Amino acid sequence: MKSNRFIITLIGIGLLGSANTVFAGEPIEPIAPVKEINLAQVELGKKLFFDPRLSKSGFISCNSCHNLSMGGTDNLKTSIGHNWNQGPINAPTVLNSSMSIAQFWDGRATDLQEQAGGPIANPGEMALTHEIAIDVLASIPQYVTEFKQVFSTNTINIEQVTGAIAEFEKTLVTPNSRFDQWLLGNKDAITADEHAGYKLFKDSGCIACHYGPAVGGTSFQKMGIVEAYKTTNPARGLSGVTGKEADHFKFKVPTLRNIEMTYPYFHDGETETLAEAVDVMGRLQLARNYTKTENAQIVAFLKTLTGEQPSFVLPILPPSTDKTPRPKPFE
Amino acid sequence: MKSNRFIITLIGIGLLGSANTVFAGEPIEPIAPVKEINLAQVELGKKLFFDPRLSKSGFISCNSCHNLSMGGTDNLKTSIGHNWNQGPINAPTVLNSSMSIAQFWDGRATDLQEQAGGPIANPGEMALTHEIAIDVLASIPQYVTEFKQVFSTNTINIEQVTGAIAEFEKTLVTPNSRFDQWLLGNKDAITADEHAGYKLFKDSGCIACHYGPAVGGTSFQKMGIVEAYKTTNPARGLSGVTGKEADHFKFKVPTLRNIEMTYPYFHDGETETLAEAVDVMGRLQLARNYTKTENAQIVAFLKTLTGEQPSFVLPILPPSTDKTPRPKPFE
Repeated sequence: MKSNRFIITLIGIGLLGSANTVFAGEPIEPIAPVKEINLAQVELGKKLFFDPRLSKSGFISCNSCHNLSMGGTDNLKTSIGHNWNQGPINAPTVLNSSMSIAQFWDGRATDLQEQAGGPIANPGEMALTHEIAIDVLASIPQYVTEFKQVFSTNTINIEQVTGAIAEFEKTLVTPNSRFDQWLLGNKDAITADEHAGYKLFKDSGCIACHYGPAVGGTSFQKMGIVEAYKTTNPARGLSGVTGKEADHFKFKVPTLRNIEMTYPYFHDGETETLAEAVDVMGRLQLARNYTKTENAQIVAFLKTLTGEQPSFVLPILPPSTDKTPRPKPFE
Repeated sequence: MKSNRFIITLIGIGLLGSANTVFAGEPIEPIAPVKEINLAQVELGKKLFFDPRLSKSGFISCNSCHNLSMGGTDNLKTSIGHNWNQGPINAPTVLNSSMSIAQFWDGRATDLQEQAGGPIANPGEMALTHEIAIDVLASIPQYVTEFKQVFSTNTINIEQVTGAIAEFEKTLVTPNSRFDQWLLGNKDAITADEHAGYKLFKDSGCIACHYGPAVGGTSFQKMGIVEAYKTTNPARGLSGVTGKEADHFKFKVPTLRNIEMTYPYFHDGETETLAEAVDVMGRLQLARNYTKTENAQIVAFLKTLTGEQPSFVLPILPPSTDKTPRPKPFE
């Protein structure tokens, strides 16, 4: 998939190397700068990520539900799809998603490339077919030229499309949060309350699942260990993928990076505030009733995980031609 | 509305002054660089333009139907609104819209600021109320601070919101098209065929309505002068605003700038290609049946009107707080 010609190293400042000694011992690691990215694929993938012609309606793009102005989410309980279809589950953030062990809440896609093909063809989301998506792109000379430059072939296929989108998504990391600055040695980067929240986050067990650079995303865990989680949402979680009863109601532990921006919370999106989310997690997963002060301290800590948001110029999309299949929003 | 403190002159290179002698005599003028813009309002307006929290669903922003990746339009016959409502008319481009005598196809808004308030509260478009829009913005500290910086007041009102959006929209001009380069003296900027198309455009009368820097936008004209325009679209045009029978089926002459990007065409969006649009205009407005060659030459000329698209970093929106009214997409 990758063309070696274009592989370069971005921002190779050795941040992690030099910082290892500073954050050693902490279960959360700073977000590393993006390395080894195919810049030509990224630029193509950025256009595709913003192109609503990958939907039947011509109205919904990847960015519609993973809005990069809003933490890589839509900030809705569940997403709006084709024909205003109400989605079944809360849209996870695309930010730092390259660090997840798998994609979707139930992990049914192994990586970002596999994920990217899903919504395009999902009748309740973008509602197109991969075939029409390719027909659309192949009818637009500027896309044809760019695919040729990037992939060195004359034909466009869906693997190239999803590969380029995935490559763009790998750039969507959010380094330099105040917490990362603290990890890297700037002890003034977080307040005493925020530090107390972090200590509590570790000492009371949140860290058992929310660790690593993404502060989550590394395992599947049952929602409601101590006490059952009540929801009307029918999602079954990992068991829907594995077929194993033991995996029932296990969901991928979400990243807590930029959690201040990715409300509402949990797979059903039913929890609107961070305070409520911390309370629910404490009681249901850890048998812990945080006091008001403790809750506020953990929330304060969580807000230090907001990093630098991806910064790029809004892509301009090449226009359709007379031969481009037209969107069908109302069919 | 404007704070004098922030008024600056952008790109004051005297382009128009020095160029007057070059394009004098041509009925189309080059697009002038933006001057006298309030940059602080522009930055705020840019956020608001991209903020879907100005809609009831939390899903639709100004950019949804005036997509700045796609020529400031949605490239749909008629737009998709709240609850997948099918809009009544083709969304006009926001690009260069500051040059229009009025806004909307029927001119019912006198300027961009008045226009901006319409879709927010239109039940078939963004379906919010101005009151809730203000409540949303006033609940977000970063917005409160920015409004205070820009407008020097502690309270946010809808005039500020629409004023900032309009100020941003004034920056959405598309200078430096190949045709403008030709107007400014670069005789190699357009081909012989494109020049023949321009000559035909003038000689056969298109220029009577499509003139000036926006190549349109300066008058209301009846659709179907020589021959009636057949459409199932019920829009009545200017008469719906003035109540005068003489204004029946008069629509604002659309700009032809970036026309290659703003398909489909006409107020009903029923015409998909430029070739068809040129044919219809020739027959219905000018009693002229362009030959295939003539049609192709005019289309080639029209494509030289594609200018530099607005280039800016995708804005990052400040997150909602616990007090922010939540979107209601499915109510």
